[in-house]
Amino acid sequence: MLFLARMDVVFPDSMDPEVMADFQVKEKAYSADLQSRGIMKAIWRVVGEYANYSIFDVDDHDELHAILSGFPMFKYMNVKITALAKHPNALEYYLKG
Amino acid sequence: MLFLARMDVVFPDSMDPEVMADFQVKEKAYSADLQSRGIMKAIWRVVGEYANYSIFDVDDHDELHAILSGFPMFKYMNVKITALAKHPNALEYYLKG
Amino acid sequence: MLFLARMDVVFPDSMDPEVMADFQVKEKAYSADLQSRGIMKAIWRVVGEYANYSIFDVDDHDELHAILSGFPMFKYMNVKITALAKHPNALEYYLKG
Amino acid sequence: MLFLARMDVVFPDSMDPEVMADFQVKEKAYSADLQSRGIMKAIWRVVGEYANYSIFDVDDHDELHAILSGFPMFKYMNVKITALAKHPNALEYYLKG
Amino acid sequence: MLFLARMDVVFPDSMDPEVMADFQVKEKAYSADLQSRGIMKAIWRVVGEYANYSIFDVDDHDELHAILSGFPMFKYMNVKITALAKHPNALEYYLKG
Amino acid sequence: MLFLARMDVVFPDSMDPEVMADFQVKEKAYSADLQSRGIMKAIWRVVGEYANYSIFDVDDHDELHAILSGFPMFKYMNVKITALAKHPNALEYYLKG
Amino acid sequence: MLFLARMDVVFPDSMDPEVMADFQVKEKAYSADLQSRGIMKAIWRVVGEYANYSIFDVDDHDELHAILSGFPMFKYMNVKITALAKHPNALEYYLKG
Amino acid sequence: MLFLARMDVVFPDSMDPEVMADFQVKEKAYSADLQSRGIMKAIWRVVGEYANYSIFDVDDHDELHAILSGFPMFKYMNVKITALAKHPNALEYYLKG
Amino acid sequence: MLFLARMDVVFPDSMDPEVMADFQVKEKAYSADLQSRGIMKAIWRVVGEYANYSIFDVDDHDELHAILSGFPMFKYMNVKITALAKHPNALEYYLKG
Amino acid sequence: MLFLARMDVVFPDSMDPEVMADFQVKEKAYSADLQSRGIMKAIWRVVGEYANYSIFDVDDHDELHAILSGFPMFKYMNVKITALAKHPNALEYYLKG
Repeated sequence: MLFLARMDVVFPDSMDPEVMADFQVKEKAYSADLQSRGIMKAIWRVVGEYANYSIFDVDDHDELHAILSGFPMFKYMNVKITALAKHPNALEYYLKG
Repeated sequence: MLFLARMDVVFPDSMDPEVMADFQVKEKAYSADLQSRGIMKAIWRVVGEYANYSIFDVDDHDELHAILSGFPMFKYMNVKITALAKHPNALEYYLKG
Repeated sequence: MLFLARMDVVFPDSMDPEVMADFQVKEKAYSADLQSRGIMKAIWRVVGEYANYSIFDVDDHDELHAILSGFPMFKYMNVKITALAKHPNALEYYLKG
Repeated sequence: MLFLARMDVVFPDSMDPEVMADFQVKEKAYSADLQSRGIMKAIWRVVGEYANYSIFDVDDHDELHAILSGFPMFKYMNVKITALAKHPNALEYYLKG
Repeated sequence: MLFLARMDVVFPDSMDPEVMADFQVKEKAYSADLQSRGIMKAIWRVVGEYANYSIFDVDDHDELHAILSGFPMFKYMNVKITALAKHPNALEYYLKG
Repeated sequence: MLFLARMDVVFPDSMDPEVMADFQVKEKAYSADLQSRGIMKAIWRVVGEYANYSIFDVDDHDELHAILSGFPMFKYMNVKITALAKHPNALEYYLKG
Repeated sequence: MLFLARMDVVFPDSMDPEVMADFQVKEKAYSADLQSRGIMKAIWRVVGEYANYSIFDVDDHDELHAILSGFPMFKYMNVKITALAKHPNALEYYLKG
Repeated sequence: MLFLARMDVVFPDSMDPEVMADFQVKEKAYSADLQSRGIMKAIWRVVGEYANYSIFDVDDHDELHAILSGFPMFKYMNVKITALAKHPNALEYYLKG
Repeated sequence: MLFLARMDVVFPDSMDPEVMADFQVKEKAYSADLQSRGIMKAIWRVVGEYANYSIFDVDDHDELHAILSGFPMFKYMNVKITALAKHPNALEYYLKG
Repeated sequence: MLFLARMDVVFPDSMDPEVMADFQVKEKAYSADLQSRGIMKAIWRVVGEYANYSIFDVDDHDELHAILSGFPMFKYMNVKITALAKHPNALEYYLKG
């Protein structure tokens, strides 16, 4: 079951650069794990913004909320999700790699 | 080069059902061709709406505009695109199939 | 898996009252069936508007889109859905009857 | 008399984690009491956000405002309410449990 | 129990002036009845717009929706309501006449 | 000459509770004086929000701005006003008490 | 007492050019009369739009609504007004001619 | 060449009252100079808000930006401008004094 | 003096294809003339939309409004303009060809 | 391949004037380099705002995101981009210098 998510990150101006770098390292590891487990099917940078669009494949809403709220930087993110269904014109449900 | 597109379709209330069905047949063929040529990498239905999110892989803006404005139902669509770049946390640029 | 939906209905001004009444009869039957099957858990009128909030319990997105787009008045509705997860403070997942 | 409420929580970045945890404990107790007294009929998490949708059953507006402004975290919440009436298509006024 | 309502009227351009005038006569009578029964406590014109703000005093949401949807021009109105509670600084709950 | 005002209050998170309480005492006295002088005809709490709708009866704009900007908590308020005229369907210009 | 008004004109596409021209002639006469009587202090075209900003000097809201709703093209206009007070930095209340 | 400007002022909560008063004195002098030189043709207070509408008469955009960004309080202002042209119904280009 | 304009075109659904084509031919000629006279410095298609961004170099607002309202398709366009000044970091005022 | 960008700068109120000046010097150098390399084709000041519109000519999205996120003041900027294609009415793809 697919969801499109848009995540915008806003760090407080006073955040220490090392703290920020540490968040980014943890975020990368968390994100890599989700991708390798087939839960996060894609993540792209929105050009010009500290934001991403990503695709999640989950079994239910409780799982998705646990995943999203588990992001190390969740406290600093605005997340909006859109539920996606199969499109009648789609040849395949997912992207071609 | 990837773009995320959201397309919302609004048909006039007075449109004849056969005309509408004909548009949908042509749209499906156009969309299938784009997918088989690797230009449209994905298309999903937005749940509850006559709308889709789709992913396009094109070489430049003139090509993308020609593709979008060539949709048989383009006259009845509102299209908004978002330019996507590689995300530093992405294991792969595209979705895993 | 729960979704909150808000549906706003806009009929064209020129619609014949009998056609409208017929739509409403069909809508009521469709809605009753969804409720009796436990798919639509609730539907409430938004005070002062031709709109409702409703709660759906479905297994996946394809099922939900099929249900929503199957409403007899779907063509005249704007539908926005919100995915709901269990809240840590909730004593029960659903409403008490 | 039913109301749908959406509550979004925004804590200041500088809030001490223990203070935040204490707020959340008090909030949970307050919320449980409202549910056990039949005032809060449901509360759900909005997936991906620090927000909830909830259903309140109250006798009048003064009671509802007292309840909402009595939430321990009220100072940090944006609350928007929608008055709900019985829908002509509803088999029951409340959700089926 | 008080509600503030804002009602915006939009007539289709093609409406016959006599039909419009008839609507306005019926609307005036309906509105006068609500005022004389103490249900509509006030109605004011929004300067420069075909719109009003009005105050309703009702016992519950079903009653309010019945009243609002009973306006002869309801089909042509956008209605937004706001629930009002007693303000701690108010000397009286209602306006002074 | 009537105006509807909506006032939303936002205190900085760091405000000392005693300072806040002092503001609220001064606000209450200021508001009571306006009501007893017949300038503020009504004030209601917006349910679930730190906000009010109120009705002002003034002779001109300079007087109204002086009154609004004289609120002890003006610095922390967002104020939006709407000019009200007599409605052709109104039995009385003001609310019935 | 001054008000700033913004008026946007939207004519239905089907309006006959002669009808439109007739409206514009009447509008010009109406507007000239208001200016010569000192009620409309200024009117400017918003560059690129079928819209104007104008300044009205009136005694009360009922007068202003009567003036605005008396525009020959009122039915086709969206009007938004803003109440203006004397600014503490203004050397004169009105524009210098 | 005329522009309508709307300027909203937002001072940080922590600003020292003397600093604020000093800004206001400088702003008044700057504004008076612009008026006496015929550049700022009018300035009005938006009722209920720390905001103004003003009219500027300048020769080009570089001059206007220099003037606006030269306001002592520019750092704390949100400025939105609208280009104004002569209206076909205007008896005079400017306001009557 | 430069302006950025965004123009969105909306044709009525009922417009005859030949009428539309005729508008487009006239629009192209009008636009070419403005470019050859150095008034319209650039025009670009917004990808995926029946819209353009364009750059105008004019002497004053009356000239600009005359040019914009002279577009053959002006009746079907929404136009929003933004006044542009020289940027302190710009090496040249205009684009490099 | 062209993009229009709008960049709005918001510095924290507490920023030291020397730090701000240093940012502006670095920004100017970065911007000049992009212009001299033909990547940034134009940059204009939005009149009355700490914002610019600029035109970028890049080969792909990854390059554009690297350029935009490399601005010394990127952390303090909100950036929105619009993809531009050749317009059928354009005599030349770029501006005339």
